[in-house]
Order: sequence, then C-alpha cells, then structure tokens
Amino acid sequence: MSQEIYHHTFANGLTLLLERMAHVRSAALYFLVPAGCIYDPPPHLGIASVLADLITRGAGPRDSRELTLALDNLGLDRDESVGGIHIRFWGATLARNLPRALDIYADILRRPHLPADEMDAVKALALQDLQGLEDEPRQKVLIELRKHHYPPPLGQDRRGTEAGIDSLSVDVVRRHYQRLFRPRGTILSVAGNVEWQPLLDQVGRLFGDWQGGEEPVLELGAQPRPQEHLSKETTQTQIGIAYPSVPIGHADYYAAQGAVHVLSGGMSSRLFTEVREKRGLCYSVWASYQTFKDRGSILCYAGTTNERAQETLDVTLHELRRLQDGIDPEEVQRVQAGLKSSLIMQQESTNARAGALASDWYFLGRVRSFDEIRSAIDGLTPEGITEHVRRYPPRDLTIVTLGPQALKLSA
Amino acid sequence: MSQEIYHHTFANGLTLLLERMAHVRSAALYFLVPAGCIYDPPPHLGIASVLADLITRGAGPRDSRELTLALDNLGLDRDESVGGIHIRFWGATLARNLPRALDIYADILRRPHLPADEMDAVKALALQDLQGLEDEPRQKVLIELRKHHYPPPLGQDRRGTEAGIDSLSVDVVRRHYQRLFRPRGTILSVAGNVEWQPLLDQVGRLFGDWQGGEEPVLELGAQPRPQEHLSKETTQTQIGIAYPSVPIGHADYYAAQGAVHVLSGGMSSRLFTEVREKRGLCYSVWASYQTFKDRGSILCYAGTTNERAQETLDVTLHELRRLQDGIDPEEVQRVQAGLKSSLIMQQESTNARAGALASDWYFLGRVRSFDEIRSAIDGLTPEGITEHVRRYPPRDLTIVTLGPQALKLSA
Repeated sequence: MSQEIYHHTFANGLTLLLERMAHVRSAALYFLVPAGCIYDPPPHLGIASVLADLITRGAGPRDSRELTLALDNLGLDRDESVGGIHIRFWGATLARNLPRALDIYADILRRPHLPADEMDAVKALALQDLQGLEDEPRQKVLIELRKHHYPPPLGQDRRGTEAGIDSLSVDVVRRHYQRLFRPRGTILSVAGNVEWQPLLDQVGRLFGDWQGGEEPVLELGAQPRPQEHLSKETTQTQIGIAYPSVPIGHADYYAAQGAVHVLSGGMSSRLFTEVREKRGLCYSVWASYQTFKDRGSILCYAGTTNERAQETLDVTLHELRRLQDGIDPEEVQRVQAGLKSSLIMQQESTNARAGALASDWYFLGRVRSFDEIRSAIDGLTPEGITEHVRRYPPRDLTIVTLGPQALKLSA
Repeated sequence: MSQEIYHHTFANGLTLLLERMAHVRSAALYFLVPAGCIYDPPPHLGIASVLADLITRGAGPRDSRELTLALDNLGLDRDESVGGIHIRFWGATLARNLPRALDIYADILRRPHLPADEMDAVKALALQDLQGLEDEPRQKVLIELRKHHYPPPLGQDRRGTEAGIDSLSVDVVRRHYQRLFRPRGTILSVAGNVEWQPLLDQVGRLFGDWQGGEEPVLELGAQPRPQEHLSKETTQTQIGIAYPSVPIGHADYYAAQGAVHVLSGGMSSRLFTEVREKRGLCYSVWASYQTFKDRGSILCYAGTTNERAQETLDVTLHELRRLQDGIDPEEVQRVQAGLKSSLIMQQESTNARAGALASDWYFLGRVRSFDEIRSAIDGLTPEGITEHVRRYPPRDLTIVTLGPQALKLSA
C-alpha cells in the first residue's frame, strides 16, 4: 500500500507532518506541545493540567464562549490531554473544515487569554479530578506504580497535588505558559483528505513567525522505593508491576513488543490464558509497553479478589519470568498476525494516523512507513524474542498493591 | 456518497447484512443473538454473562485452547459482550481472513462445547466482575439508575447477583443456550472489502439449516421505586437521573437526539457549559439517549464533590427543564455540524458500520442510508426540538445518588 507522507520543519523548530489519505472525507489534526506534567515545578504540581484547561478558555479575537462555539460549529470532535512529555490537542472533522480549525488552534497555542476570572472554576475541576482518584482504585494503583517505578519527575501524574493546585495564581500559570509553549519541539500532524502545499502555506502563515520559550532542563531524582502497599478497605486488591525494557528506536524494540504481545497480545496470550482463563483469578490482567526517549518499561496490571490476590501476583510473576525459557513458533505467528491486523486498522483511521505520525516524529525524528513496520514484524522469531528477554529479564521489579492486606513478594 | 448495502433473511429467520467498502482492506463482523440479560430467569441472574464466556471455550472440532488460537491466528481483534436484549460478538481483521473467522463463529453459535470443567473458572470471573462494582461507584450508580428506571426485567444488569451465579450448573447453562440461541432474531452484519455473493453463499452453508430455540416471553413487572440513595463513604457523590423519551423509529426520534445534543453534544453544550465550565461543579457530566424497541429514555450522569453535590443536582435539573423555554438557532446549527461530522467518521470505520447496520436492522427492520440520516439532521429546527421537549418534558424522574449523604429532591 503506497503512502503519501510529507514533512517540513520550519526555521523556528516547529514540525509539520501530513499523511494524505485520498479515499476518506475526514481529516484529523494532532498537536504535541512539549509542556507535559514532568515539567511541573515541584511547588506547582498540577500546573500543566490547569494550563491545558485554561488555554482553551478564550484566545485571539474570541472569548471562552466564542472559542468553544467556533470549534463546535466546525463539527470538530476534539479533546486535549496532559501526558508526561507533552500537552496534546487533537480533533477530527470534515476535511474541508480543517483550515478553519487550524486558524483557531493557532490562537489557542499562541494567543491564549488565560483569563483570571476562570481560574476558580478551573482549579475546582482540577481538584475534583485529583480527589476522584480515591474512588477509583484501578487508576490509583497505576498512577502510584509509575511514581514508584520512574525517577522523579518522570513518574509524575498530571493530576498533581492539592497543595500544588492550591498554590496556582493566574500569573504563575501565565509564566508557565510563556516559558514552555514554544515552536521548537512542537509537532503538528495531519492525516486525511488534505493537500500538502495549501497546508504548508497555511501553517507557515500561522506559526512561521512564532518565537520564544525555552528548553526546560530536566534533572532526574533518585529512584523511589520500588515496593509499596497502599492500605485501603476495598473489595478487590489491585496489583501493579513494572520493570525496565528498551526504548523505542533501540535495536531490540520490536523484540520487546513481541515479548509483550506473547504475554498480553490477545485471548491466547500467556497472561490471559494462565491468570484469567485457566484459573479464573482475575477479570482484568494485562501487560503493556511504555517508552520515553531514553528508557522503556513493561507495565503489568491485575485486579482480583482479596482472597486470591497472592496467587494472582505469584502466577503473574511466574509468567513474566517464564518468557526466558523459550517461546513457541506458533506464539510468534499469532503475535505477527495480531500486529499486522492492527497496522491495517490504523491505516483506515485518520485519528490513529495523525497520532502515529506525531509520535514517530517525536521519538525517532522520522515517520516509519507501513512497509518498514511490516517487515520488522515479519522479522520476529522465537529465538530473537527469547534472546531479548534474557538480555532484559524481569528484574528490578517495582510492585505496588492496593487493598486491605499487603502481599508477600517472593522477588 | 454512494453506499453498497445488501441484506438477506434466510428461511430460518437469520438476517445477513453487508456494507461493501471498496477502499479499505479490513472487514468487521458483528453478531447480535437475542439472548441478552433481560432474559435471565430470576433464579439465575448472571446466566447470560456466564454463557457468553463459556460459549467461546471450545466449539465444533476445537477445544477451548484451539479455538482461541484459531481466532488469534487470523489476527481478529474481537470481543463479546452482554447487553439487555442481545449477546454481541464482534471482531475485525484483514478482509481476506473473514471467511475463516465466520467458519469459527458458526461453530461457536451452533456447536459450542459448554465444557463442565471450565465452569468453576467462568463462575469465579463472573463473581469478580460483580464484586468489583463495589470499588467503582461511577458504574454502580448507572447500573442502579437503570434498575430503578425501567420496569423489570428491562433494567437488569449483565453482572447478575451472587445468588444467581452461585446457582449455575453447566446443565442449567446448556439448557439456557438451547432455549435462547436461535436463528430467528439473530443478525449478522459485515462491513468492509467483501463481495456479497460469496458471503451470502458461505453464510447460507454455515447457518441456513440452523433450527431450534424459542421466542422468550417477556413479562414486565411493576416500576420500581424511582428515587434511591445508596449510602457509601466515598470521596465524591455520584448522581444519576433518567426520564422517558421516544423510542427509535418514532416521528420525534431525531428531535429527541437533537435535544440530547443541545444538552450534551459538545463542549459548548448546555450541561458542559453550565455545570462544568462556568461553575466548576464536576469533572464529568453528560446526558445520553437510550432506546428499547418500544420505549426510549434520557439518562444523565454527574460525579462531584460531596460538598457541591446538591448544587450540581439542582443546576443539572434546571438545565433539563430549561430546554422547554426554547433553543437558539445557533445551538441547532452546532448540533447539526456535530452529528454530520460523526456520521462521516462512522463511514470510515468498518467496526462502526458493522455495528450500525445490525442496530438499524434490529430496531427498524431496515438499514438507514447516510442520505436519509443526513436529511433528517438537516431537518432539525429550534421550533421542532422545543415542541418535542414540551411533549416529552423531564418528568417521572428517576434519581439515584451514591455517596455519604442523601440529597434533597425538589422534583
């Protein structure tokens, strides 16, 4: 399948990407702005989330209400979210409405009002988002897992802290915006029925003269305590496990993905089979791969009854370790079938493609073609994955549990 | 945009639908089997969920493991779920793998092993799914809202009861399967790069001689107590509100959808603006439309701090009632833009189209064309929606709350 992919990096450092999809009528846009929550200063944890909410409350010639109306008038199905590295803005609509949506996003990124009189509502919402976690033990254990697994601030959560949110004045938020919102490191990707030259011209007009901001320096702290039990009178016990893997771009990257899919890539995968299907230990169990530019990790989750939590932890750890004993050729064939099927699905979604373009550019400085990915998937072998797992076995485990009782860690 | 839609109802009552999408490489399949949880007999609440799990654990020539392997080998991204009316099976993969997937689903629907030795694991999982609800107050309040809003068994939840799950033997599950799994009322829809004639021939071979099963008789009980507070020491208070609307197929259907979208169809919608953006009352608030064949409902949700729960309920109810005072032309234009944009997105997803075909057939006995839907959306007017809301105002409210303290109901 031929792909039409374009890219241009402007003199100010902003990168524009397009995948032209001639057979669709929609277009999706995706902005990555390098102002994620790992850059939240320690006295102001939660500031990226407050900024991401406040920034859409009026920009350029429009006040908060007019801005929302203008985007809804375009039928743009959109959202923003705060990740570790980036604040992300995305949306999809009819391709012919894309230019007007981009005009508005240029206002949001470059000329936001950050209105003082909306700070109370925005802070109240941020506090609720944080407090709501106490009623959501599943999410809570995964957030705590990342905080214990990564050296700070890499494991910081977007929800921040009560003290951090309380500390925020509109001036503090405006300075944070001034410092971090900048063209260098910002990526705009578009996928859909869109022509390159008019898009390039428009984005040049909208963002070409954008200047300012600074590259924040990130100093990593010491690795936190790798094992933690959060005591809570819940009906179920939540279990999170993490250990180091290779980052994307590493020669072992596809082998690492292959290993995770052997564990968790379908209903025949090992965790699903051994923990859920055979023993009925828990309704939800999975492993996933997560990467920063310089480090990758495997994260696992299981939620189970309090009575069977110890057995669930033991069986899960056993499956993680057993990967080193070897992998069947049939397991690799199934992983290949699943990964290739996902790749085809991604090719048919403008939202998925816009996200993938931006992610590739951030991590690799280029966009991988389908042919490249398919050929890497075809290159997976039982021996290759097993050798990778022996080089990067499950060790230096971070284990966080939440429930009425702590579990025994045989590790 | 031209559409290629095919349908055939076999002599035994099974309906096959296809939307041919020539520009994609994937295909999605979607089965609706009329064996949802409202047909769970009172002593066996939860039986549909147990059956939906057990039925994929071996069928035709394959045991449980072989069946899962065969589907994963096809790269089929799939799941099953239990709704009120139907048990649903769906999946998507490369179009060329569809025929082999259908062969396997014919075994699952017609020749399942329903193995006795997997009952313990399946029952354990069903119990965990039920017990896990106690740690998920958001889901809990919505389940209780439906139980209080609909006459039984329409509000029954798929998770059943502990007593119901405990009561199940493999023989009871097998009899339930024999009684409810049947061609009449079963719908199979396919969307993707698939030719009609070979599909029709294959499905005829696989399902044409399927017989048996009976049409279950549903007797509705008395409407339960419409107002309930569930006392629980949570950090947030969960609020659910429901009231009657028209069913799909009713002349007012699109007006009802328009009204829900004025309330909750985008970031400029009334609930989002008044409850969340202006007052910062709650992070999540929405209204949605739900339909059975003979009755529709509007369901609303808000989750907020305990301190602001009363204000959140009052403001939400005020917004529901205020619809009758009139709707701006601009609000209707935005609803139209949003609905049409969603329609375009749906046209580009094989999964979404397969689901929509089956749903249309179940509710309407035909598939609506995009032109028909678009023209109905274009026909929405402020007057039309306002008149509808006056005919079907928010009354006979069901209100269920969950949190440390009950709220005052001014209703």
